[in-house]
Amino acid sequence: MHVLLNLSQVGYIMSASYTDSSDDETSPRDKQQKNSKGNADFCIKNIKQADFGRREIEIAEQEMPALMALRKRAQGEKPLAGAKIVGCTHITAQTAVLMETLSALGAQCRWAACNIYSTQNEVAAALAEGGFSVFAWKGESEDDFWWCIDRCVNVEGWQPNMILDDGGDLTHWIYKKYPNMFKKIKGIVEESVTGVHRLYQLSKAGKLCVPAMNVNDSVTKQKFDNLYCCRESILDGLKRTTDVMFGGKQVVVCGYGEVGKGCSAALKAMGSIVYVTEIDPICALQACMDGFRLVKLNEVIRQVDIVITCTGNKNVVVREYMDRMKNGCIVCNMGHSNTEIDVASLRTPELTWERVRSQVDHVIWPDGKRIVLLAEGRLLNLSCSTVPTFVLSITATTQALALIELYNAPEGRYKQDVYLLPKKMDEYVASLHLPTFDAHLTELSDEQAKYLGLNKNGPFKPNYYRSAAA
Amino acid sequence: MHVLLNLSQVGYIMSASYTDSSDDETSPRDKQQKNSKGNADFCIKNIKQADFGRREIEIAEQEMPALMALRKRAQGEKPLAGAKIVGCTHITAQTAVLMETLSALGAQCRWAACNIYSTQNEVAAALAEGGFSVFAWKGESEDDFWWCIDRCVNVEGWQPNMILDDGGDLTHWIYKKYPNMFKKIKGIVEESVTGVHRLYQLSKAGKLCVPAMNVNDSVTKQKFDNLYCCRESILDGLKRTTDVMFGGKQVVVCGYGEVGKGCSAALKAMGSIVYVTEIDPICALQACMDGFRLVKLNEVIRQVDIVITCTGNKNVVVREYMDRMKNGCIVCNMGHSNTEIDVASLRTPELTWERVRSQVDHVIWPDGKRIVLLAEGRLLNLSCSTVPTFVLSITATTQALALIELYNAPEGRYKQDVYLLPKKMDEYVASLHLPTFDAHLTELSDEQAKYLGLNKNGPFKPNYYRSAAA
Amino acid sequence: MHVLLNLSQVGYIMSASYTDSSDDETSPRDKQQKNSKGNADFCIKNIKQADFGRREIEIAEQEMPALMALRKRAQGEKPLAGAKIVGCTHITAQTAVLMETLSALGAQCRWAACNIYSTQNEVAAALAEGGFSVFAWKGESEDDFWWCIDRCVNVEGWQPNMILDDGGDLTHWIYKKYPNMFKKIKGIVEESVTGVHRLYQLSKAGKLCVPAMNVNDSVTKQKFDNLYCCRESILDGLKRTTDVMFGGKQVVVCGYGEVGKGCSAALKAMGSIVYVTEIDPICALQACMDGFRLVKLNEVIRQVDIVITCTGNKNVVVREYMDRMKNGCIVCNMGHSNTEIDVASLRTPELTWERVRSQVDHVIWPDGKRIVLLAEGRLLNLSCSTVPTFVLSITATTQALALIELYNAPEGRYKQDVYLLPKKMDEYVASLHLPTFDAHLTELSDEQAKYLGLNKNGPFKPNYYRSAAA
Amino acid sequence: MHVLLNLSQVGYIMSASYTDSSDDETSPRDKQQKNSKGNADFCIKNIKQADFGRREIEIAEQEMPALMALRKRAQGEKPLAGAKIVGCTHITAQTAVLMETLSALGAQCRWAACNIYSTQNEVAAALAEGGFSVFAWKGESEDDFWWCIDRCVNVEGWQPNMILDDGGDLTHWIYKKYPNMFKKIKGIVEESVTGVHRLYQLSKAGKLCVPAMNVNDSVTKQKFDNLYCCRESILDGLKRTTDVMFGGKQVVVCGYGEVGKGCSAALKAMGSIVYVTEIDPICALQACMDGFRLVKLNEVIRQVDIVITCTGNKNVVVREYMDRMKNGCIVCNMGHSNTEIDVASLRTPELTWERVRSQVDHVIWPDGKRIVLLAEGRLLNLSCSTVPTFVLSITATTQALALIELYNAPEGRYKQDVYLLPKKMDEYVASLHLPTFDAHLTELSDEQAKYLGLNKNGPFKPNYYRSAAA
Repeated sequence: MHVLLNLSQVGYIMSASYTDSSDDETSPRDKQQKNSKGNADFCIKNIKQADFGRREIEIAEQEMPALMALRKRAQGEKPLAGAKIVGCTHITAQTAVLMETLSALGAQCRWAACNIYSTQNEVAAALAEGGFSVFAWKGESEDDFWWCIDRCVNVEGWQPNMILDDGGDLTHWIYKKYPNMFKKIKGIVEESVTGVHRLYQLSKAGKLCVPAMNVNDSVTKQKFDNLYCCRESILDGLKRTTDVMFGGKQVVVCGYGEVGKGCSAALKAMGSIVYVTEIDPICALQACMDGFRLVKLNEVIRQVDIVITCTGNKNVVVREYMDRMKNGCIVCNMGHSNTEIDVASLRTPELTWERVRSQVDHVIWPDGKRIVLLAEGRLLNLSCSTVPTFVLSITATTQALALIELYNAPEGRYKQDVYLLPKKMDEYVASLHLPTFDAHLTELSDEQAKYLGLNKNGPFKPNYYRSAAA
Repeated sequence: MHVLLNLSQVGYIMSASYTDSSDDETSPRDKQQKNSKGNADFCIKNIKQADFGRREIEIAEQEMPALMALRKRAQGEKPLAGAKIVGCTHITAQTAVLMETLSALGAQCRWAACNIYSTQNEVAAALAEGGFSVFAWKGESEDDFWWCIDRCVNVEGWQPNMILDDGGDLTHWIYKKYPNMFKKIKGIVEESVTGVHRLYQLSKAGKLCVPAMNVNDSVTKQKFDNLYCCRESILDGLKRTTDVMFGGKQVVVCGYGEVGKGCSAALKAMGSIVYVTEIDPICALQACMDGFRLVKLNEVIRQVDIVITCTGNKNVVVREYMDRMKNGCIVCNMGHSNTEIDVASLRTPELTWERVRSQVDHVIWPDGKRIVLLAEGRLLNLSCSTVPTFVLSITATTQALALIELYNAPEGRYKQDVYLLPKKMDEYVASLHLPTFDAHLTELSDEQAKYLGLNKNGPFKPNYYRSAAA
Repeated sequence: MHVLLNLSQVGYIMSASYTDSSDDETSPRDKQQKNSKGNADFCIKNIKQADFGRREIEIAEQEMPALMALRKRAQGEKPLAGAKIVGCTHITAQTAVLMETLSALGAQCRWAACNIYSTQNEVAAALAEGGFSVFAWKGESEDDFWWCIDRCVNVEGWQPNMILDDGGDLTHWIYKKYPNMFKKIKGIVEESVTGVHRLYQLSKAGKLCVPAMNVNDSVTKQKFDNLYCCRESILDGLKRTTDVMFGGKQVVVCGYGEVGKGCSAALKAMGSIVYVTEIDPICALQACMDGFRLVKLNEVIRQVDIVITCTGNKNVVVREYMDRMKNGCIVCNMGHSNTEIDVASLRTPELTWERVRSQVDHVIWPDGKRIVLLAEGRLLNLSCSTVPTFVLSITATTQALALIELYNAPEGRYKQDVYLLPKKMDEYVASLHLPTFDAHLTELSDEQAKYLGLNKNGPFKPNYYRSAAA
Repeated sequence: MHVLLNLSQVGYIMSASYTDSSDDETSPRDKQQKNSKGNADFCIKNIKQADFGRREIEIAEQEMPALMALRKRAQGEKPLAGAKIVGCTHITAQTAVLMETLSALGAQCRWAACNIYSTQNEVAAALAEGGFSVFAWKGESEDDFWWCIDRCVNVEGWQPNMILDDGGDLTHWIYKKYPNMFKKIKGIVEESVTGVHRLYQLSKAGKLCVPAMNVNDSVTKQKFDNLYCCRESILDGLKRTTDVMFGGKQVVVCGYGEVGKGCSAALKAMGSIVYVTEIDPICALQACMDGFRLVKLNEVIRQVDIVITCTGNKNVVVREYMDRMKNGCIVCNMGHSNTEIDVASLRTPELTWERVRSQVDHVIWPDGKRIVLLAEGRLLNLSCSTVPTFVLSITATTQALALIELYNAPEGRYKQDVYLLPKKMDEYVASLHLPTFDAHLTELSDEQAKYLGLNKNGPFKPNYYRSAAA
């Protein structure tokens, strides 16, 4: 079972606290429940929470206009008619909006959770009440986890022809237990870094037996998950954990990729003095032109108030640096790895750890100096701030489009390989989110389209524009 | 002869005005001149201006530290020993620094101008005095232009083995007149959009007979020419022409690529209220997230004070829009094409044109309404502002490295095709410019390099990072 | 008892949650407690919490370097030797640092709470253990409140000669019960808007019988409480309550004073599109020059995603506007009055209120439209975000200096009137906070001081610079 | 004759270059000229330039909507009927719009120039043609200067009752030559720092015999002349003189008043790294909170690329600092004094001065190091950039309102003292400029006005808000 959290699972973390924790202790597997129509093909915590879950779903619908638009636009033609989708994702209100959209487009769905803690029980109840075969509850055991996945695929008279996975566990289970099932499967849509990595490994090894769509690396998702989202979540994460005043603070941001760019810009805008470290001279030159002093960490480590890692590397902030930090220095990680800060090096007898708040530790040196370590070095934005529904909406819309694309692609368009979403569909996801901002796109005239050598409906950029700038 | 100005030729435009215009009228072709060592293998305006030109070169040297570093680092090994480079570029102080660097690296050079107006005569004199065979003066006739190019290549006992071109005229001349010369030529380095386009056409037609390096599209050059340079030149160009106060002005920026991003950010920072138009939903969504209202031009055309085109498209601002602009509206073009504003549509009898300053026209409607048209719709940043030497330095360094790479590449590394500079050399150009900012790069530890799967010396990003973000 | 919260009481709100609420239910007034030295002249919740409170105070000390510096610099001379200070403020860790500073400077202190909910019980315990006569606990009744105040002043053999008040209740009590006490009192230092207002009323009525220092209106406090603090707390308050993504949101800020300037700047920096409303043409012109569209509320009310009031006025957002807001619009108040949003008008039968989180209500129209009302229209920054200790430090330092000034002022310097802190002391407060930022002040040379007609040690600005810009 | 340039005279500097310099050499005093109506009561360069001047005035009218609105609103009532105004200001197109407005409001005007170089001859011609008694031309001798002033006041059958002065020379002349004239004079309106200073001196000495209005210190003018105008002119001045790229440059700004705030904000926005020096701890703390490192000049002098003085002090940048600057460092002054940079210390034999452009000197040390000194240490924004007409419009409108106020004030409202414009008129000036930005002011309801204790029409702020923030 994968343990790395990917961004899409955070939405649930915050709202999960609203789930009633005083439920009875009986395992859902031992319960007999039916929905109001007598259907019992599901396994969830408590079907009686369906009304509450429905309200959560309705609120989410208001903030996911792109999926709602997709329902409207595509409903006439039912582009997923005949699709039998098995899914394994976080089961949250946002996922429910996705599932009900897939259903509206013609698909049948069976669903399990990709994380043992992330299920919103009341949402699962609403889905079950609505006729979805859901197998998930908050607080599953590892055995429950695989049992639920198995219940999704191991069904009499029903065989999936599409997979929507988040982490690769569902795909892995089918590979292991029901490899023949792939004969009927038209494709896999995978959301997470981990799952995508597994698929590329399968592909390299020649073992990928159906086309797979990597939605993690679509432009829209990348830009939003990294630059725009981190620009806000760095401030939010720091405030919620430490209440620090940003104005006048000296901050060093390690790494000037999209995440580092977002963090640096936000803190500069709030009146912090930001230093940047980089290994890549091109990103370094960008930092200079954007108005940041480019330094080595050891040049500023004694003077800074906040250290933020955004490198994707390991051991960027090591014990030696932490020994030299000043009293009260805040240390946190916004990169993708939980090894950027060498937290292990702080687990030594001479240092005292003091938990001062949830996700906040003071690590105390023998001379009384304290550093403030956030989230024990894990990702600050996942642990200590929330992900806006708008970002989740982009992801869910991309997933839906990827399923439609793979399901409807003519024979031979996709081989047994891992694909990025076609540029044009990336653009379509973006266009579906413009109404949120009351944004009005300009259309090319015929003459202009001809001049530029473009189709009036896009794609407007070549495929190599997909990857973010160096 | 190519007429499209590319960015690198602007440096000269401003400094050109310092050239003494009271020179005698005799054509250089009719003069007999020798430098102080008796060498007469050049043709320039006036060898006596050499001292003045030398001072200009020395000043430029101070602002081109990367080339000076290149001289220092590479001089021992003379990586261009044996190279016979024929060049055709603007002949300015910055070019002189490049040429003297090439010479210091071991090359022999012969040089002509790529534009009949752009030669700084005093710089040409200094080069001739220094022993370079330069054939160029300000105010050449078209016949002079080709004669000069011919004098560079048509020499007894000397045959070029490398071409450095800016616009493709030199390359074209050799193709036409001395096609056999290509047998000894190891490669072409081309700087301009136009020249690169010609090379790709040759390549497609199977007629490119040596490897060519497209330095126009290197990351570093692109980012600096577009985002960072335009961020400054939009303000400079508007101020120099109109003295307009930016604070509180309503501005519409057409197009949100790198140029549009730079213009929008600068004007927002100066207190303007900026609207953006886009055709591409992904760029449009970025504009929204960056805090700009995304509109169609007709929604705001009546209310804006300034209209700026950055699209690369044609007829973006047509007469119909200009009819509806308010009195005093400023209209200018920062994109790459001089057809973004339909200036031709303003050449009608009912409209009066009044030249109020150099590069500034009032176009007056029958009811007295005036719009302020800058540079007759040509590129504002080329016509009305300067290009910092720092940007020219990046370009010149890239050219030098491209020459070294092609000249030293092992047989077979480059075929008869058009290449982008290897990622690693892009990074090297960037690294040579970091000392300008007293910027200190971080080095990977062995352990970190292994973790990331990178070589400690780069390249640090995959090749597909080359292209700018969508 | 005053009910308006002033800013300084917020620090406690957040940390208060750490206070153990499972304490026994006996009223402190019915308990007999002694500290470890046998002293019983206090009345608090539980003396056993002293150790925990001490730690909180120690942490606060680290973030209040100005008071610690004051202890150090002034300790030798004991400028408050002989002072008998009675105080009535929020009793928090930050206040404790102030009280212990006053004590270190020579003063004797007796203290009550200015708010029935704001006492941090563990801090009160630590103060009592340290020998302070503190009378306060969290959750006092109104009767307890006045009883505690009385215990501070109605003491055998001890009579206060200085008052430090926050809200004016202590001053009011002495006026009412022990008017003769004023004969020995050298002055009042008052912190809150409400208390200052009461003092000016007394002064106008000719009833103020001692000098009073208005520390609420000192430049440093004003700038920090308003511009700099609100710049951060608007973002924090919105995120903690709604998790809204700022990028691309349309926001209207009502009022462009210091608070409005802070809110507008922060949201613009995060990528929101901000509109401003104003009644004062000078502030309006500033908004224009700062890049905001100046509108009337009704022009944008249908399109905005967030409405923020910062006017100090009443009924700025009335029902008529809320009827026209779009679904999901967030409405909140950052001004000083809880009447800026006409919340009463929403308490009508056809509207449904739904509490979705602490401090967050959905108000639902018959057609299903929801607006998101924060803190029921009370101050967002007090209810839903924290105040940085740095701001509290500025306030506490100003209070300490005001006490020293009044206590040591030569006879006749201050009459029976309300005074602002002398400019020079404002500057001193600022200078004590510069080391936090490792900031280095330049000193005038003798020649320069003479040229400017200034004393080298300040004040550097005339007194009329005190008030913030129009 | 005063020599200090005040800001309002800059407009002319740039446009002055359009004046035909090939005019004949006869002194205007020796010419006999009449306008088309036969009037000869003026003395100017060439009445034939009137048409050209009229066009200049018409263009200026378009950018001075507030004066045009004033003409419209106040014309019915002729608030200046009977006023006989003698003026001494720069004679530019903007002044002409002011004079013709005064005339439209009922005043008679006679006018001289306050500077021997600043007259736009063609504008003077247009005014003379329009019937104004103007005595001014470009390139007056000092004798001409006083002769022209005398011709304005020493007239048979006409005696001024209002003075509009810019620099105090006119006032001085009347004091000296025609003191009795003051008996009929209702007041003086003075524009410049110098003139205001003289008036305060007269007032202190008890010699001021009529009320005077200090329009230099009105809020609107101050904010625009300093913060907003300098924010733009620092960029413009640096670009026009040096073409420097701002991105990545290290800059130190000396002084963090309004001018320093404007310069720092602009350069930070363009990607420079800005350090600030201050003597006042309150301004210093603001710099910290705004995100600037507060340093002493000697801490950064070796590393910065640009030094900008904004202090109003003397010898801020002394030789010792310039000795330590790095090669190529740019030094300029944006403060009000030309002594901020100790330029005299650079006039020593071992240093070489090289004029490289108008207003740009290289000062060269024996080791070859060059610093780039702009405008020989005089004000950069006056010497090397322009002042937007919008700022001139604010000044001219304020002058007009001050004249109306003084002329119509009931007996006794103004004593023989120097006054600031009433807050309400400041607000009126601002309100007249809002339409430029299509800005819509909100009006208080009766209920709100009562709640705030304000008149619905203002003033909206107390008088002590006049002065800018510390």
